[in-house]
This record gives sequence, C-alpha cells and structure tokens, in this order.
Amino acid sequence: MMRVAIQGATGYTAYELIRILLRHPEVEITAVTSRSDRRRLDAVHPALAGRIDLELEDLTATEIAERADLCFCCLPHVASMESVPALLTAGLEVVDLSADYRLTDPGVYERWYGHVHTDPTRLGTTVYGLPELFADQIPGQKLIANPGCYTSTSILALAPLICGGYIEPAGIIIDAKSGVSGAGRSAKQNILYAECNESISAYAVGSHRHTPEIEQVLTTASGKDVDVLFTPHLTPMDRGILATIYATPTKPVTQEVLLGAMREFYDGKPFVRVVEGLPRTKDVAHTNYCDVTVRVVEDRVIVLATLDNLIKGAAGVAVQNMNLMRGIDETTALIV
Amino acid sequence: MMRVAIQGATGYTAYELIRILLRHPEVEITAVTSRSDRRRLDAVHPALAGRIDLELEDLTATEIAERADLCFCCLPHVASMESVPALLTAGLEVVDLSADYRLTDPGVYERWYGHVHTDPTRLGTTVYGLPELFADQIPGQKLIANPGCYTSTSILALAPLICGGYIEPAGIIIDAKSGVSGAGRSAKQNILYAECNESISAYAVGSHRHTPEIEQVLTTASGKDVDVLFTPHLTPMDRGILATIYATPTKPVTQEVLLGAMREFYDGKPFVRVVEGLPRTKDVAHTNYCDVTVRVVEDRVIVLATLDNLIKGAAGVAVQNMNLMRGIDETTALIV
Amino acid sequence: MMRVAIQGATGYTAYELIRILLRHPEVEITAVTSRSDRRRLDAVHPALAGRIDLELEDLTATEIAERADLCFCCLPHVASMESVPALLTAGLEVVDLSADYRLTDPGVYERWYGHVHTDPTRLGTTVYGLPELFADQIPGQKLIANPGCYTSTSILALAPLICGGYIEPAGIIIDAKSGVSGAGRSAKQNILYAECNESISAYAVGSHRHTPEIEQVLTTASGKDVDVLFTPHLTPMDRGILATIYATPTKPVTQEVLLGAMREFYDGKPFVRVVEGLPRTKDVAHTNYCDVTVRVVEDRVIVLATLDNLIKGAAGVAVQNMNLMRGIDETTALIV
Amino acid sequence: MMRVAIQGATGYTAYELIRILLRHPEVEITAVTSRSDRRRLDAVHPALAGRIDLELEDLTATEIAERADLCFCCLPHVASMESVPALLTAGLEVVDLSADYRLTDPGVYERWYGHVHTDPTRLGTTVYGLPELFADQIPGQKLIANPGCYTSTSILALAPLICGGYIEPAGIIIDAKSGVSGAGRSAKQNILYAECNESISAYAVGSHRHTPEIEQVLTTASGKDVDVLFTPHLTPMDRGILATIYATPTKPVTQEVLLGAMREFYDGKPFVRVVEGLPRTKDVAHTNYCDVTVRVVEDRVIVLATLDNLIKGAAGVAVQNMNLMRGIDETTALIV
Repeated sequence: MMRVAIQGATGYTAYELIRILLRHPEVEITAVTSRSDRRRLDAVHPALAGRIDLELEDLTATEIAERADLCFCCLPHVASMESVPALLTAGLEVVDLSADYRLTDPGVYERWYGHVHTDPTRLGTTVYGLPELFADQIPGQKLIANPGCYTSTSILALAPLICGGYIEPAGIIIDAKSGVSGAGRSAKQNILYAECNESISAYAVGSHRHTPEIEQVLTTASGKDVDVLFTPHLTPMDRGILATIYATPTKPVTQEVLLGAMREFYDGKPFVRVVEGLPRTKDVAHTNYCDVTVRVVEDRVIVLATLDNLIKGAAGVAVQNMNLMRGIDETTALIV
Repeated sequence: MMRVAIQGATGYTAYELIRILLRHPEVEITAVTSRSDRRRLDAVHPALAGRIDLELEDLTATEIAERADLCFCCLPHVASMESVPALLTAGLEVVDLSADYRLTDPGVYERWYGHVHTDPTRLGTTVYGLPELFADQIPGQKLIANPGCYTSTSILALAPLICGGYIEPAGIIIDAKSGVSGAGRSAKQNILYAECNESISAYAVGSHRHTPEIEQVLTTASGKDVDVLFTPHLTPMDRGILATIYATPTKPVTQEVLLGAMREFYDGKPFVRVVEGLPRTKDVAHTNYCDVTVRVVEDRVIVLATLDNLIKGAAGVAVQNMNLMRGIDETTALIV
Repeated sequence: MMRVAIQGATGYTAYELIRILLRHPEVEITAVTSRSDRRRLDAVHPALAGRIDLELEDLTATEIAERADLCFCCLPHVASMESVPALLTAGLEVVDLSADYRLTDPGVYERWYGHVHTDPTRLGTTVYGLPELFADQIPGQKLIANPGCYTSTSILALAPLICGGYIEPAGIIIDAKSGVSGAGRSAKQNILYAECNESISAYAVGSHRHTPEIEQVLTTASGKDVDVLFTPHLTPMDRGILATIYATPTKPVTQEVLLGAMREFYDGKPFVRVVEGLPRTKDVAHTNYCDVTVRVVEDRVIVLATLDNLIKGAAGVAVQNMNLMRGIDETTALIV
Repeated sequence: MMRVAIQGATGYTAYELIRILLRHPEVEITAVTSRSDRRRLDAVHPALAGRIDLELEDLTATEIAERADLCFCCLPHVASMESVPALLTAGLEVVDLSADYRLTDPGVYERWYGHVHTDPTRLGTTVYGLPELFADQIPGQKLIANPGCYTSTSILALAPLICGGYIEPAGIIIDAKSGVSGAGRSAKQNILYAECNESISAYAVGSHRHTPEIEQVLTTASGKDVDVLFTPHLTPMDRGILATIYATPTKPVTQEVLLGAMREFYDGKPFVRVVEGLPRTKDVAHTNYCDVTVRVVEDRVIVLATLDNLIKGAAGVAVQNMNLMRGIDETTALIV
C-alpha cells in the first residue's frame, strides 16, 4: 500500500485526484495540506462526505514525508518550485501539477511566468509526464512534471501527424475551448456564474503560457522546430477542452491515411481514442480519455481533440504518471 | 429632461438600470458613482460600449445634486442608509434599491440585518415601491423603497388571493428558485461558475431576509396577519425567479374562480400577466413582466409566479417607480 | 461471471447502466437491444468508444435468454409489461426500470397511466427495489421493480421521519427540481436546449405519476396513511434531483433529534449520507449517493434530499438491486 | 403605419422579429402564418402573452397581400423560394430570411443545398441585405435576401481588412462558435438539452453552407478572390456567435493600424462596435450590435467578432433592412 499526500488540496484538481485515489487499490491518502484552511476535507469538498476522514493541515515537507511515500503537489506555479525541492530532499516522490517543472529553459520560464526560476537545475532533467509520448522515461523517476490541460490536448492531437511528417511543423493554429473549471477555484469576478454563463470569449490571445509548453514538447517529440499560434476560449461549461487545430499537409493526403497514422501511433495506448465522428467534450467528461480525429478539407488538415481538463488534463494523468513511476498497471483506477 | 444619477453603478442591477434609462425619452444619465472604481462605465459593463460616455466617480451627495434631479441608490444595505439621508437633504429624489427602507420597524430591521438602523424615523413613512399595490402613494414622493426580488414575486403571486380572502394568511409555504445574478457581482467562491453550474441547492433556509418583508407588505395590503415560510434556492441560470407557493383555501374553490380573482385584481396593471399555462422564467427574462397563475390540487392552492430578478425584481420596477413619482406614464421605457 | 442483457439500450439510463456494468467485476454485457436501431452501441453512445463491442439487435425474450442470465428492461411503461412476462418465462431474472411493476393496485395503475395493466397478477407480488427499505426482500427475487427517480429522492428523505413518528404522514408537500435528462432522450420540443436553458418551470402540477408511487411505498414502509402533494420542476442542468419537502412535526422537536433519527435509520446503509450542510445536486452527480438533511423552522420540518436521477435514481440502484438479488456485495461497481 | 406579415412564425427568429416589430412605431403586425399550427401566437411563444392578439393562419400570398404591405418570410430554404415569387407577384415587399436568395449562382446553390433553384432569375439581382456593406442598394428594393448569422459575423469581421488590403484574401480560417438556438426549434435529438449542455463540438466541418455565402459576399465587396475555411461549433448557450478568425497580413502591420482601419470603415455605422477588449457574446446578446476587434500575433492577424445570431444575425438585421427599404431611420426599434 502506497501512502500518498496531496499538497494544496482545496481546488478542483485536488478534488478529482482524491476521488480517483480513493478507488485506487494500492493507495492510501494519508495527508492533505493547505496553507490557511483548517477545515475537514469534506467541508471543502462536500462531495467527499462519508468517503474520507481527513482534515487539512499545514505540514512541512518533513512532516509530509513522515506520513507519505509520494506527494501530489497541487500548488500554483512559483509556490510549487518553492516546495518541490524540500519534498524531494525529504525523500518523497513527487508529481508536480503546476507549470514549474514543465519547461526546460529557465529563460523561457522567466519570460512567460514573470518569475526567476529558483530551482533551475531541475529544469531540463525533469521528465514531462505525458505517458503517451514519454512512458518509457517515467518508471523510477522521483519527480514528474504533470502536463498542462491545453498542452495535453494539443500535443495528443498533433504528435502523430508531426512525428509522421504529415503536416508542416510551423504555422499551426490551435483554437481551443475550455470549460470554466480550468480557471481554478479562487474567487475572481471574471469566472462568476453570471459572467461566464451564456457567453463565450477568447482570452490571453497570443500570450497564453501553454504556448511555449506545446512547442517545446512537440519539438522534443518530433525533432522538428514546431511553431504554433494558440488561442484559448472560455466556454460556458464546467469541464472539457476541445481543440480545433488547423495545419498544412506536407503533401496531398487523405483523411483515411491520417486516421490510420493516428491509430498506429496510439496503438496500445489505452487512453487515446481515435474516433471517426467529431468529438464532443461531453463524451470524455469525467474520464481519462482523449478523443482525437482528423479531417482533410481542401488543402488543410483539421485535427480535433477533446479531453476533460480536470482528469486527462490534470488529475487523471497525474495518477497515470504515479502508476507508471511505481510499476503499477497504467490504467489502475482510471477506467470507470 | 430629467437628470438622473446612479450611486453604486458597478453591479448587475445598475447595469440593467442604465440600459433601461438609455431608452427612456425623458431621462438623461448625468453621473455614475463608485467608491473605489474609476474606470469608464463601458469598461465595467462592456455591453454599454458606444452607448454612454461616462466615467465612474466618487461623488458626495451635494455633488450628485448639482448634476442630477433624481438618484437611484444601488448601494448595499447599511451603506444605503448612510447615504440616503444626505441625498435627500441635498434635494435629490431617491429610489433606494437596497433593503434599508423597506421594513417599517427598526427592531425588525436590526434583528434580520444585524445592524442598528441609523435613520429610523424614515422607516414607517417611506413608501414601499410595489406599484401594483401602492401606485397611488408613489406620485410626488421624495424617497421610494424599491422592493426585493423574491418579495415582489411572492407578493404579486399572493396579494389577490389573500386580499380576496381565498386563502388562509398563515401557513403559506414559498419555495422560490432564483438565478445566480441575484447574488450580486462581488467575487465569492460560492457563486463561481464551476460551483453553481449543474447544481441546484437551497440556501438561507428559515433565515432569508426577504421573509419579514413579504410578511409585512402582505399584512399591510390585506389587513390580515400573514405568515410565510420562505425557502430560496440557487438555480443554474443567469436570471429569473420562480416562486412555487403552497397555501390552504379558506373554503372549497375552483381554479377558475381564483384565476378570475387574479385577473380582476390585476386589471389595468400593465406588468402582471395572469397566464393559464405554467410560467417559465425564460418567458419573462429581460422584461418587466411578472407572470402568475394558480392551480387547485385536492385541498391545496398552488400559486406560481415568475419574474426577472434584475428587471421586474429590481431595475425595471425602479424605473416604474420613477415614472410614477414624476407623473410619467408608468410603462415608459419598460416594454420592449 | 454473470451474463447481462439490456433491453432498450438507446437512452440515457441504459448508457449509465452500461458504464456501471463495464466496471462490475462479476458481469459481462452480452446483448443490447432496440426495436428499430441497428447501429453499433458506440455510435449511439459515443462516450462508449473503445469500451464495448456490441451492436443493437432486435431480440426476442428467448434469444435474450440464450445469451444472458439477467436482463435490465429499460423500455418505457406499457412496453415493459408487454415484454417482462416473456423474459421471465424464458428464464431470465429481470430488473425492470419502467413504472409497470411499481404500483401494487392495477386500478391505481390504470388511473395514473391511462392503460389497463396486462400483467396484473404480478402487481402486489413484485418487490419494490429500494434497497434502503426493502433489502431483505430482494435476494433471490426473479423480478424487481426499480424505483422512480423522484420517488427514491422523496422516500429516502421522508422514511426515517414518518416511520419514526416524527412528522405527520398527511399534508406533506414535496417541491422537487430535476435536471432535464429525467425527461428522456426522445426528440421533443419542450426539452430542446434553447427551451430549457436559462429557464425553470413547474410541470405536471398535481398530476405527476410518481405521486401514487411515493404514497404507496411510504404507506407500506410506515404503516401510516401517507398523503403527499408532489410538484416537479424542470431545472436547467443535465442531471440531479433536489427535493425540498415541507412537513408538520407530530410534536415539538429539534433538528438534532431529527438528524439523529436519520443517522440511525441509515446506519449501515452505504448510499445514503445524512449531511449537516444544505445538499447540492452537484455533490451527488455521477454517484450512487443520496444526500439528506433536515431543518426545523418554527413549526415546520423541512427535509432536503439530492441524488443523481440517472444513477441513484435509475441505473445505479438497478445495479444495487442486481447485486442484492445475486448475493453480491451491494456496493460492487457503485462507489467510484 | 406599415402593415407587416410574418410567414412561418413558429420559430425563434420569428419570435424575435415579432418582439422587435411590437416596439416599432411605424409597424403593425397584421398576420402570422404557419402551414400546420393553428394556435394563438402566445401559445406558441408564451413570452408574447398580453402583447399581441393573433392566431396562426395558413394564408396564400394573395391573402397575405390583402392584409400586409411587407412580408418577412421565415420559411426554411426551398420552402422559401416556392413562396417568395407569389408574395412578390401579389404586390408584397419581402425580406426573405432563408438562404434561398443569398447566393448569386444557381449552380452554387444546387451544389450546397442539394436542390435545383426554381427561381434562378432572381439570383444575382436580389440585394444581399447586409446594410453595413450594401446600405445604398437597399432603399426601394422589393426583395431583400437577409444574411446568414455566421455569414454576417464573418463578413463584418473581415470586410474592413480585406477591402483595405491589410490581409490576404485567401487562406483565411474562420473558427466560429454558436449558441444552440441557431439550430432552430424543430425537435431533433442532437439539440436536446441533455445532449448540448456541458459539451462543445464542431459540426459540418468543411461542409457548412455559409462557406460559399461568406466567400461570395466578401469577393463582391472587395473585388478580390476570397477563400475561407469555415468551421462552426455548437456551444452550450442559447444565443450568440463568436468568430475567431486567423488571417495573414499582406505586409507587417500593427494592431493599432488595423483597429484604425476598422473604426474608419464602420464610422457612421450604428451597429458595429470596434472594441478594444476581447468581445464576449454576452455583451451583444439581445442586441443588434456586432462587436469586432483585432490582434496581431507574430505574423498573424486574429480578428474576433460577436453578435446575437437571432438579432443582428437574423431578426434584427431583417428589421434594419425593412427600415432601409422604406426610408425609415435605420436604427428604429433596434436600440434597446
């Protein structure tokens, strides 16, 4: 039985993580932390009533390590890189759900996040936890950088076609639509119900921080210099991301060839489904699946991908990473 | 041309008020205030782009009076009773949209709002601005207490049947469902999109402040000692209130008799529609209408009423009150 | 390994049933039927892509019995009573999710459903599958009548207090709010997105068919003559029911006593959670839990209960019944 | 006073049209038709209760002409071209809200709509009713082809930049998101609440019929050969369209220059607002405004535009066209 802690357990991702871990046969949740909240966990997440008997605590890395073998770090960026080194030093394995260990270049981090990275030596050596691409690097790692939600959607959509040489690596347009839970659980006026409901809008046009992450990982995976224009949209729904991606084929190609390339790429990967219909976010909600498909329209390739931003985009892939780190079957607790 | 100011212009009610006043042929909006916000009005309410050229200012009552003849006070309770006396002293007519001048008994105010009323002499003398009941008292007033949204829904549903002696004044159960805009525009976790969407729940069970207001006004209107149990619910929609009300008939009665009594009561009242079907909040959204109907089921009377909490429940009735205060046709700017 | 068939597999309840059964360790789904649809199951329910490899077939009872041990009948009422006798005769165990075997009196059935019951001898002898009340009668049964969604919510809320003698069995008012999936998946104008969204309304006032079912079961369970006024509302959300119930205490009582009675009544029942806060439908969505609580306001008792109409209100309790029929642990496949 | 009829008055667009016309000071609605529905208009559209006293009738063109001067034809495509010639012959002025008179080439119509056009001589001579581009051609016309909703959004976003030579006319990608009311009011499973809510998906990828309409009108307006890739998405909201459009600048350009070009292009056009922030559909809902803005990101131009598909995308622009046909002020009844 692995003992697991969750650092920063008040948000939506932490909630989903707890729910998945509660059904994991080889895991026991032993600690949940918050800097300022001292309530019972089921007061913060009423859906957990009767399911877990823990209170939020403010624990040091050493205290966490006394109770747990592995820690999911659900802190916001910056806070995460202040905490992770101590967790590792205390002997914990860590899955970090923030952005702090995803980028490999401290300069790129500083430019996009506006903070000097205080743990730069771990950048470039930390494995990026997207199992569909990097599963062989994950077993045995002590620290995994869990991917961003938009990033996973975009990469899973594009990797087969870029790696296979079917589409140009540059000039890719990613038009992504996300449910509101992706913006977190902190009280902010722009994510109030009466602001978001009955409304769709773009945000962070040309400046969303998942842009360099998408480019970096696809470049690493394909060996080509990938360049994307990424535009996120706030969509009136709780959860789900749909990425509609426009690319240029390297040479004339049919939809069937591209679907075939996708199927081959994801053969044996349990959580990516290459579908023939146009994917709906509803069909992956509350699951660890990513649905992808592709269309050829005149001289363009359109790739469509959906996933649940809180599950396959965050908590689900985090458990998938934990499973792989520990040599547990990758799908454990993740297919319901 | 009447010059009108709005005190506290950053919320949803103020926005709706501005939108209505912009189409009012006899009104010019000359000032909009905020204690702390100095933005242009269309930065705060982007839907007003190109429609109004004002900036939020922090103005004293005297400064407001230099620019306006009438002021809509959209401050929260307590703040309102600190502001209204000065507005009146400065010579302004005032429609107060807070709860501060609705109750007649300072002791009741203190018990439900937890504050000593600092302007008690105006309680009991301020006219309650529900035109369907008190239209004859409104013309010429200098201060009108604009009714609460749940209150108007409940009173408009019940007044014909209580005043007509058709139902018992005690033991009335009001089960009300409101859209989320009723909770205001301040950033609070419980009204985030991802908390409210896909969820309905009761709140303030047995303790909502509209309870004494409903009882007081119905008691005043009917001369009977009205007693209600009021339960509000937060419903996943922007706007709209549905009240489902359960009462006991004083003697056996048919639905047709009750519908007839309602029609007679509201004859000549332009904004209450006695409908035969079951009212939907959608059909009154963005209007100043209140739709009401009634059913007799075995030995119970069920009254159903809908209105838009921001319009007929707040900004619309405020303009209706202004029209009546000034001798302008009651419906001006209110039927679109 | 139990072989299971689903008759009428195109709707929302059947989808949830399949999803639960796919994670059930002792079940194999061997047949899914439809009268007219011949598509693959994952064409009808795209969320099942990659999870099940079956096509819809039009099978006779005998053909189903050749492939399955137990059949979940998800046909509409009337169609169900035309099918169930043949399924039983063919040797199948049956969980019937329609209303056809829930009422015990053929006359009551005819009055509320407008059809003569064609299998009246089974009424009165079929066990009503609400495990929290009738778990001891379910093991070994060949036919179980799966309860209605509003019915389960109402009964689970009221049973402890009526059976315990805390509230009057008559004069109970049930004001229930349901998500739109409760209205099924057939194309009807009144459940179109643009009709339901941003709207709440009552329907079937005084005439909803769950009324006699609630009364019958509570009367059976308590030995008292229970009489309820039931008013359902269509709420703009996919799933979830909230029942707000108003009752009269038999004698003065405190909230603590009533909560204590509820806790005792549901002690050892894994799927009813007696909570202290006001339940939200969101917290039981996609689960087999029913959350209940109670408040005492002046001389009234208010009971609040939530469940997911498709899970605890339909597919989840159906599997719970199957588990109990077969001596499998009641919670198998139901806690995720 | 102009007498106006609405042919095909049961859908959402007809409802909005009626609501706008009811506040038009120079219009009287004298007839509303339906092939099969004989109900009162407020039974079909409950929001119209108390506002209009008409019943749906099945009228010939001649009968309509006896009662009206102008007819809004709200029939579906094909049905419209079967009706419009008779309406014109009977002496009516017609605003046709279908697609039947929008395209200029009968061959293109046949290819995209799958029907031979039965009134081909009017194609190419009918004025396309987008007042921001063709206002000078509309006065005095007897037949106006009212534009499609996606089309208006896309054209209003792109026209200033294509006509001004700022962006390449080819290779434009339009990623559009629409509320569900755009799919009409006929009962279809794919637009049920429980299918659309909590879900976003693309549809008609590469095959939506607004594609040739966008290309034709922009080509006409600019004199350049415009080519677009248009991808529509079904978004969980009642109303609103957001188009996020990706184009290539003809030469390096700043956002300020492009915003300036837009402002100049729409100077004096009352219903297009060039905004600086990122437009939200909520801010144009229930209005006749189209909000547009532009961003330059690296070597791409991103144009964003929003409008209400039922108002500026259908009923509002139809009234705008009527006003212009008749020499009435363009904004009459359209700013509320």
